[in-house]
Amino acid sequence: MTLSTTSRASAPQILDRCRELVRPALVESVGRLHPWHAETAAFSLGWTGTGGEPAPGSQGKGVRQALAVLGAEAAGGSGADAVLGAVAVELIHTFSLIHDDIMDGDETRRRRPTLWKAYGTGPAVLAGDALFALAVSTLAEAPGPGGAAAVRQLAGALGDLVHGQAQDLLFESRPWTGPGAVLPHEYRSMATHKTGSLLGCAAALGAVLAGAPASTVEALDLAGRHVGVAFQAVDDLLGIWGDPQVTGKPVHSDLRRLKKTYPVLAALSADHPAARRLDALLASAGPLDDPAARRAAELIDEAGGRRATVAEAHEHLAAARACLDRVPLARSARRDLLTLIPYLVDRTG
Amino acid sequence: MTLSTTSRASAPQILDRCRELVRPALVESVGRLHPWHAETAAFSLGWTGTGGEPAPGSQGKGVRQALAVLGAEAAGGSGADAVLGAVAVELIHTFSLIHDDIMDGDETRRRRPTLWKAYGTGPAVLAGDALFALAVSTLAEAPGPGGAAAVRQLAGALGDLVHGQAQDLLFESRPWTGPGAVLPHEYRSMATHKTGSLLGCAAALGAVLAGAPASTVEALDLAGRHVGVAFQAVDDLLGIWGDPQVTGKPVHSDLRRLKKTYPVLAALSADHPAARRLDALLASAGPLDDPAARRAAELIDEAGGRRATVAEAHEHLAAARACLDRVPLARSARRDLLTLIPYLVDRTG
Repeated sequence: MTLSTTSRASAPQILDRCRELVRPALVESVGRLHPWHAETAAFSLGWTGTGGEPAPGSQGKGVRQALAVLGAEAAGGSGADAVLGAVAVELIHTFSLIHDDIMDGDETRRRRPTLWKAYGTGPAVLAGDALFALAVSTLAEAPGPGGAAAVRQLAGALGDLVHGQAQDLLFESRPWTGPGAVLPHEYRSMATHKTGSLLGCAAALGAVLAGAPASTVEALDLAGRHVGVAFQAVDDLLGIWGDPQVTGKPVHSDLRRLKKTYPVLAALSADHPAARRLDALLASAGPLDDPAARRAAELIDEAGGRRATVAEAHEHLAAARACLDRVPLARSARRDLLTLIPYLVDRTG
Repeated sequence: MTLSTTSRASAPQILDRCRELVRPALVESVGRLHPWHAETAAFSLGWTGTGGEPAPGSQGKGVRQALAVLGAEAAGGSGADAVLGAVAVELIHTFSLIHDDIMDGDETRRRRPTLWKAYGTGPAVLAGDALFALAVSTLAEAPGPGGAAAVRQLAGALGDLVHGQAQDLLFESRPWTGPGAVLPHEYRSMATHKTGSLLGCAAALGAVLAGAPASTVEALDLAGRHVGVAFQAVDDLLGIWGDPQVTGKPVHSDLRRLKKTYPVLAALSADHPAARRLDALLASAGPLDDPAARRAAELIDEAGGRRATVAEAHEHLAAARACLDRVPLARSARRDLLTLIPYLVDRTG
C-alpha cells in the first residue's frame, strides 16, 4: 500500500547517514559488555550470525537512531549531540525485540532464528537485560546538562513501553465481542505505548541532548508516538494481507494465532453482517486453519476492517506531520523527518 | 554457622526501621505501574499471594533498602535522603530474582511458587522488565543535584550485575578441573559482580543522595561488595550443608544440580586425595543422586572446601568492616552497619 507521494529517494540515504554517524559509538558501547553479551548483542543487532561471522542484510533499518539524530538537528543542534541518545534507543529497541520474541514464542526474525531459539530462553532473558542496563548507563554517562533530562526521557518511555506490553498481553485473554471486548481505542492506546513510546523518545532524546525547549521535545515525542500507531496499523495489515515473500511470515499469520489486531477489532466493531459472521468464526475455539484464516481475512475486508486500518495509518501520519508544524524546527532536518516518516510506515507487503 | 559475636538483637530492629521509612515510597512507586505489573510486583515483593491476598511472612529481609538508608545516615545525611535510592535497589533486586528464577528454572522461592511458575515465563520476563524500568525512572526523578549521580551509580551496578550473571552462566559449560576449569578467584569475581554490585550500590546510593564525597561513596560501595562475596560464600555452604527445614531447598541441592560453587571449586583446587576422588565423582555425567551427593559433600569437606568457604566469608566480612574504617562516618549509622553486616551473612542453615 502506498501511504504517501513524498519522494522516497533519499530516505535510505538519511538512514545511512545517521547509521554511519552513530555506528562508532554503538560499537564502542557494545564493546563494554562482557564478551558473551557482546556476542549476543552483535547477533541481535544483525551484525553477525550465531557463530560470530558477518551477517550481511540482517540489520534493522535503524529507524530509532535516525529519529534521534534528526531530533537533535531539528532542534538546531548537530547530529553528534544525539549520538549517545541514538545508541541508547537502538539498545533498548534490541532489548525489547529479544524479550518480545520470548514472550510471543516467535522463532524467526529477519529470516534468522530469534535469540532465544539460538541460545536458549534463560540466556536470551539475560542478553536482553544486559542491553537494557547498557542503554541506561550509556545515557547516564552522556556529558553536558542534557544527560539527566535524557535519562528521565528514556525512563518515561521505558515505563510506557512495558505498560503497552502489559496491555497487549492482557488482550489475549479478553473476548472478541460483548462485555470486556477490546475496543479499537484501547488498541490504539496499546500501540501508542508499545510501539510509539520508543519512536517518540528517540526523536525527543535528540532534542533534549541538543538543549531544545520543552515544547520542541514534546512535539517531537508526540510525532514519534503517532508514527508508532501508524507503523503498528501497517504491521497489522501486513500480518493479514502481507506477501510472505516480503514479510518473512506465513500468510495470515496474525489470524492463525488469533491475534487481536486493529483490522479485526475494527471489523468486529462495525455494524455489518460480515462482522457477525467473523465473530462466529473466531468464536470457534483454537487457532484457525488455512481455509478459516482466508475466510476471516475476507470477512474483515468486507466489514471494513482493512479500510479502517488504512485510514488509521493515514490519520496518524497526518497527526505526526501536524506535530512537526507546531514548533519551529531547522528546515533541513524537518524536511528529512518528513521524508523519513512516511517511508518508515510505507512497507509494501 | 556463627560468623560473628556481634549482638544480633538490634539487626531486625534496624531492618524494620528502614523498611518502615522506605515502604510508603515503594508502595507509591509500585502503584504507578500498570495494574497487572502492580499485581506481579506485589507478589514478587512478598506483599500478596497469586490471588492478591495478603501473604504474611513472604517478604525478603529488605537488606538493600536498609543499606541505602544507613549509607545516607553514615554520610551525615538523613535516611529520608536515601528513600528513592532504597526503592530503586529493592525494585532492581526483585527484578533480578524474577529473571534469575527463569534462568535457573527454580520453581519455588521463600516457600511459594516463583513468578514464572505462577504466571508463565513470558509474563515473568515482562514483569521483571517493568520493575527494571520503574527502578530507573524512580531514581531518575529523584530531586536535587544527587539524582544524576545516583542514576550513574545504579547504571554501573546494573552493568556489573549482568556481567556477573554472564560469568555464572558460562561457568556451567566449563570443566571441573584441568584447562578451562573455573578457579576460585574467578568465582570470587563472579560473586563480586553478581551479588556484591547491588549491595555495594545500595549503600553507595544512600551516600550519593546525601551528597557524600567520592571517597565515602567508594568505601561504602566496596564494603557492600565484600558483604556480597561473604553472603555468596554462606549461600554456597547452605546449598550443600544447609538444613532443608531452614533453607526451604532440598539437602545438597547445589550438588545435585552440579552447580559450580565455592566449596566445590576450593576443594578441587586443593592438593588432597579427596579432591581427586571428588573430581572423579563429578566427572561421571548427569546430576548426582542422593548417595553420590552425600559422598560429594563428604569429599568437599575432607578436601578442605567447607573450611575454605567459611574462611572466605570471614575474610570478606573483615574486609567490609575495614572499608568502613577508612572514611569518617556518622557514629550511630556506622554502628548500625556493623550490626547489620554480619547478621546478613550469618544465617543458620
